[in-house]
Amino acid sequence: MNRLLRLFCLCCLSLFFSTIAFADECLECHQMETPAAVKQWQASSHAPAIGCSACHGTDHEAILKGDAPADAKVCGRCHEKAYHEHVSSKHGLGLHTGWGCTRNLESRDPRECRFCHEEGSTQPKTSIQCARFLTQTSEMAALGCNRCHQVENSCASCHTNHITDLAVVRSPASCATCHMGPDHPQWEMWQTSRHGVLFDALGESVGPTCQSCHMTGGSHDVSFGITMSPAMIQPPIEERAGRRQEMISICTQCHALSFAERELESADVILEQSRELIKEAEAIILDLADRDLLVPSLQNRPEHPLRGQELVLDGQMLYEDISHVERLFFKMKKYDFAKTVKGAFHQNPAYTHWYGNAEMKMTLVDIKAEAARLQKSEVSRSEVSLREEGSAYQPLEEELQVLKRKRDRGAITAEEYSQRKQTLLEKLPDNND
Amino acid sequence: MNRLLRLFCLCCLSLFFSTIAFADECLECHQMETPAAVKQWQASSHAPAIGCSACHGTDHEAILKGDAPADAKVCGRCHEKAYHEHVSSKHGLGLHTGWGCTRNLESRDPRECRFCHEEGSTQPKTSIQCARFLTQTSEMAALGCNRCHQVENSCASCHTNHITDLAVVRSPASCATCHMGPDHPQWEMWQTSRHGVLFDALGESVGPTCQSCHMTGGSHDVSFGITMSPAMIQPPIEERAGRRQEMISICTQCHALSFAERELESADVILEQSRELIKEAEAIILDLADRDLLVPSLQNRPEHPLRGQELVLDGQMLYEDISHVERLFFKMKKYDFAKTVKGAFHQNPAYTHWYGNAEMKMTLVDIKAEAARLQKSEVSRSEVSLREEGSAYQPLEEELQVLKRKRDRGAITAEEYSQRKQTLLEKLPDNND
Amino acid sequence: MNRLLRLFCLCCLSLFFSTIAFADECLECHQMETPAAVKQWQASSHAPAIGCSACHGTDHEAILKGDAPADAKVCGRCHEKAYHEHVSSKHGLGLHTGWGCTRNLESRDPRECRFCHEEGSTQPKTSIQCARFLTQTSEMAALGCNRCHQVENSCASCHTNHITDLAVVRSPASCATCHMGPDHPQWEMWQTSRHGVLFDALGESVGPTCQSCHMTGGSHDVSFGITMSPAMIQPPIEERAGRRQEMISICTQCHALSFAERELESADVILEQSRELIKEAEAIILDLADRDLLVPSLQNRPEHPLRGQELVLDGQMLYEDISHVERLFFKMKKYDFAKTVKGAFHQNPAYTHWYGNAEMKMTLVDIKAEAARLQKSEVSRSEVSLREEGSAYQPLEEELQVLKRKRDRGAITAEEYSQRKQTLLEKLPDNND
Repeated sequence: MNRLLRLFCLCCLSLFFSTIAFADECLECHQMETPAAVKQWQASSHAPAIGCSACHGTDHEAILKGDAPADAKVCGRCHEKAYHEHVSSKHGLGLHTGWGCTRNLESRDPRECRFCHEEGSTQPKTSIQCARFLTQTSEMAALGCNRCHQVENSCASCHTNHITDLAVVRSPASCATCHMGPDHPQWEMWQTSRHGVLFDALGESVGPTCQSCHMTGGSHDVSFGITMSPAMIQPPIEERAGRRQEMISICTQCHALSFAERELESADVILEQSRELIKEAEAIILDLADRDLLVPSLQNRPEHPLRGQELVLDGQMLYEDISHVERLFFKMKKYDFAKTVKGAFHQNPAYTHWYGNAEMKMTLVDIKAEAARLQKSEVSRSEVSLREEGSAYQPLEEELQVLKRKRDRGAITAEEYSQRKQTLLEKLPDNND
Repeated sequence: MNRLLRLFCLCCLSLFFSTIAFADECLECHQMETPAAVKQWQASSHAPAIGCSACHGTDHEAILKGDAPADAKVCGRCHEKAYHEHVSSKHGLGLHTGWGCTRNLESRDPRECRFCHEEGSTQPKTSIQCARFLTQTSEMAALGCNRCHQVENSCASCHTNHITDLAVVRSPASCATCHMGPDHPQWEMWQTSRHGVLFDALGESVGPTCQSCHMTGGSHDVSFGITMSPAMIQPPIEERAGRRQEMISICTQCHALSFAERELESADVILEQSRELIKEAEAIILDLADRDLLVPSLQNRPEHPLRGQELVLDGQMLYEDISHVERLFFKMKKYDFAKTVKGAFHQNPAYTHWYGNAEMKMTLVDIKAEAARLQKSEVSRSEVSLREEGSAYQPLEEELQVLKRKRDRGAITAEEYSQRKQTLLEKLPDNND
Repeated sequence: MNRLLRLFCLCCLSLFFSTIAFADECLECHQMETPAAVKQWQASSHAPAIGCSACHGTDHEAILKGDAPADAKVCGRCHEKAYHEHVSSKHGLGLHTGWGCTRNLESRDPRECRFCHEEGSTQPKTSIQCARFLTQTSEMAALGCNRCHQVENSCASCHTNHITDLAVVRSPASCATCHMGPDHPQWEMWQTSRHGVLFDALGESVGPTCQSCHMTGGSHDVSFGITMSPAMIQPPIEERAGRRQEMISICTQCHALSFAERELESADVILEQSRELIKEAEAIILDLADRDLLVPSLQNRPEHPLRGQELVLDGQMLYEDISHVERLFFKMKKYDFAKTVKGAFHQNPAYTHWYGNAEMKMTLVDIKAEAARLQKSEVSRSEVSLREEGSAYQPLEEELQVLKRKRDRGAITAEEYSQRKQTLLEKLPDNND
């Protein structure tokens, strides 16, 4: 009953707005000003009932200023189910925080801060949401970041502005604009997987598309069955089994249960194995930081906007004003790790192994080489100062300092600290000789 | 009248040549020798009126030697408008100078030198035209360079040799063979942009292709509206506004004027911002050269074919026999910079940011790291020689030498030189003590 | 007669098996359990005559255990010609040795060892077959390696499991899943070559696909006309001319003989020129090994599974636990070299030059830079120890040691060794002074 009432109201609203549009006020100019938009609307299933003002309103000044965007909320007035699925999925996570958090956006609306921050606090509410914010210019943020990171509030991201032809959004290429590139090439890996090959040869009735598995039945909940959160972090363990069952329910529309389970479990294991490689690299860089060998040192670089002079290697890691070894780690974690794991879940051998696993291992070689270089130059420095200052103890004192830092950041326990300190001190020549 | 006369002459010529072809002299053998060529010609709109000899002539020996190529001039005899648009566009710039200039091509026709050089001069007429010339072998020049850099004189580059079906040249893939890859992936960035996605789903009537925007109405002036010259150099400022208006006239066939202007202006700004990153890297390398820290040093490498022992970081930069830091710069400028800017103008977020801007920033990290490494090894060298030769002045003398080089290449003014020299000298211990 | 008899037997066999299938025992459950498999079989040319058990047998337990795979041998029972072409081509080489050889596969069937090894021997029968074996996990081997390296025994690799529609295997995308990526991007280079562009615009009747040239007339001998073996090794010289003639016979279905010969010969030359670049890099790394400058040194890394503490730079080279300079070489040889040469043979300028030749040259710059770095740090080490130990001879002694190693690995002859040793000794200060 309630539902019928709502439907009735919607129709009335539509009619009301459409009458305005029918006055042809908009079309008169816009056939000249934005010919494609008019033509596409005319060919769409919105025309003629849902006119311009139904979505854009009638305040022309506001429209021009960008104050009356035809955003997801507007679409949601009619497309309720899709809207709710969309906003409660990963697409609704608030990925535009790259925009909201960018430090040097001059024209930032202060209300946007509250999206990530409690009022008066510079700390983000969650660490996931603020993973992306660099000293980006507003132009790069607009063309480079938010062309994708606006999805939570822009149905046009996928549907385009005025076309309602579902051929656009059913095309896997439609997902490519955002789900491509070095950080998450899902489109590329699907395209050359067996799924993509079958689609290429026989169409979507045989070859599953992005939408077949991630938007089954036209659902807008793109997170259905996904056991991965942004920045390659997994959801709480208690949520994972349920999500996996969701995905299995999709795989088994074609595949045997045992096959689907085995494939996804193998990918789970590859995720864990890949994480071990990341941890190995991370430990090397943390140790270099303990020894103050990073160039530029944490003291000699611009502060991290949220974490100050801390070494940041997690999802909030930056890729500018960092040391060479951290930049190698950025590539390894953000690009190679993602390709390995997403390649495994998307059944693409070249991404899983060559673009993924092999690159991780080779970047780890590079990271170890850089660490060896930095430690070697440290050793020569010690040798030089040793000879110059005539003190045999200085390297040992430095080593004790490193040990203290490890204890302070929790890498070793207080007990381990004591033991290793003792071992170091025993190497000292007996001063009583 | 003049036009009618010309058309009449052309028809006569065609008829004359076609009668020769009709003698079937060519086909008799070529149905066996080059079956696809014959079949394609037979299915083309040239057949049967425009026969083999109309384009290839009748001197079989000359044809075999390559002395009678069916080149752009031959096509231009009939396709006058297209020919003139083509040769006056960037496609007619003489991009084959990679071929003309390559130092070690044995079989080079000396007359080709005059394409780039005044007679008797080794200096190029313009710096743009000779941007590409390395110690390339003739085979690499043939298969690697001139398969693309022959476009000014080869309509077949896009149209193929005997097919006249416009489906080939209307296909955006047709542009891919040359406009792809690390240095200018326009095809890749279009394909995954919204423009490419719409083309994929709904064809060229809705999704703009390369040709829709850069060859509107079938024009062969591919430079229409382009505000960029080869090697990412911009045309003179007085030309840019006119060219921009040309491009806007194309964008507004679909988009609102304000939107088109805003988008292109944002890309302009990204171009400037990216140039700043390039300049930052360039300054680091110039300083390393001032300090003679490049390995191999400018003295210890083969001379640059045009510029001798000079450090070349502009469009004539080579990518062999250079130092590691220059090679990083080559990647940053030739690949990352181009991807950022072309990505912005082609509305591809992943190219603008991840493949472009992020790579530039990370390569800048690498360049700074290499500079730090080279300077550190220099410092140890100084320390060693300092201790060995007992002279406190040597590092200062070196620093003065560096300062002189900076003045000589115009990096600092004479006044700045004096000031900085004075500052250095004041650091000297008082010898009268 | 023999042939007719065979055909008769086959029909009988088919009928026999199909009757079992017709009992609908399988379908009853499998319409629920593996709906896509059933649907695809029903739509295939196998149905209804060739039922489930014709390929899978009737031992359900064995099927579930993986002991009754519907592998190439099973297909070969009916598709004899294709099977024999397949197993005698490169696709039948036994590429799954990545699987058979991987050291740490727990569940390895010991009989598999004999695929590569004489019983009781750890030496591989040929060096080509064991080119790939790392400390890979079984999960990475399954999803990353053997999804492709199972081709010798899996027709489903290309044909899929139950679809018999030739549109799948005639699609060039079908080859992409394996023939893509950094090590051999044949699909990418075909797609953007003129061949691929013509296919895109006009289909396979005009644009040659992978299959047009490498599986002409539906042949399953994918090696026909190929003058290259795995790991970029060429077949014996006496075989090459015959293979080249095979390929020429395919090219001349469209192209003039002289053109085809010239193109392929140019590619041959590019192969040789590229090999020279590889040898230059290889010599640098061998010299670093002679000087014991690799980090980690050969003594300080896990043993190579087949070659122990030897420096391995050939097809058995690993990409983990190696030095930075070896990892650069791996990229240069495995990725850049392959792109250059395969790019030339597939007429793709961007792969031949930018992704290939230019990358080789730039990686060579990087390799030289790393060698210079390692040698410099060696020199400082010598200088330090020289001053400390007061011995002028030590660097000379080291140089003699290097010379000995070069003689031992056959890089210099005994005569050259004597000469260069003499030259070194003459540099010694006269001790009698």
